[in-house]
Amino acid sequence: MRHVISVKVENKSGVLARVAGLFSARGYNIDSLTVNETEQHNVSVITIVVKGDDRIIEQVKKQLNKLIDVIKISDHTGFIAIQRELVLVKVNSVPGKRAEIYQLAQMYKAEIVDMSPKSMTLSVDADPESLDNFVELLRPYGIKELIRSGRISIVKG
Amino acid sequence: MRHVISVKVENKSGVLARVAGLFSARGYNIDSLTVNETEQHNVSVITIVVKGDDRIIEQVKKQLNKLIDVIKISDHTGFIAIQRELVLVKVNSVPGKRAEIYQLAQMYKAEIVDMSPKSMTLSVDADPESLDNFVELLRPYGIKELIRSGRISIVKG
Repeated sequence: MRHVISVKVENKSGVLARVAGLFSARGYNIDSLTVNETEQHNVSVITIVVKGDDRIIEQVKKQLNKLIDVIKISDHTGFIAIQRELVLVKVNSVPGKRAEIYQLAQMYKAEIVDMSPKSMTLSVDADPESLDNFVELLRPYGIKELIRSGRISIVKG
Repeated sequence: MRHVISVKVENKSGVLARVAGLFSARGYNIDSLTVNETEQHNVSVITIVVKGDDRIIEQVKKQLNKLIDVIKISDHTGFIAIQRELVLVKVNSVPGKRAEIYQLAQMYKAEIVDMSPKSMTLSVDADPESLDNFVELLRPYGIKELIRSGRISIVKG
């Protein structure tokens, strides 16, 4: 099962390496991870998406709780949370194909952030499933490069 | 100086912990980091934003290059790259303030992803400086929660 874990931490050197280390020590590959400051500069949130056995993930969460710089852990798995990801994608676009790509961009509220004679770069944020669809729709044009942020998640209401 | 480093890696367990460990071993605090798959499922890109002395960052990059699962390192610092971040922000919104917040959202092309009687949650992707401005404009309403993805970066053209 895929878990989404939100870890609020003190914004200090070494915290991220220790958190990531707890997962790799069990041979777990993290699907995505993102960390940045919150509204308070001294507090960061690490959002981790990881596939794994519920029981083992529960153990990892307990160990995360023991780390001195961890403030709070929330499990957003199967929970009513808003989940979003961001993609920058550079796609081949010869002149005859530009209008089609532009239409797709409009449908997904993607922003065209760069144009060159042979490529277009689009930026879009959406829920992860919509992003997967968007990328599949662009794939036939030829994806030159794709960079995807880790998932971020916030509890509703 | 703030560096933006893009590290293309094999999508394997333990790579992220080793990469993050190289920075923390020098006492460097990572400002933001994000990792996710690229257009190829077996390849991920880690984008790291870190402040530090140019000479030491150069050393870290050399050591990153020696890690077996690192495919390629690109330094996007002061380079012609598109840089974007994603924010989910939950802001207090009593009925009398909703219209103002909605206007700000329109100006920044933010999407309203959740509403409750006392709050609104907005999702927006932009360059990091614009996001900073957007957050400052929302701050007077009262920010209840803010989650920010790490920066992602793609070379132009």
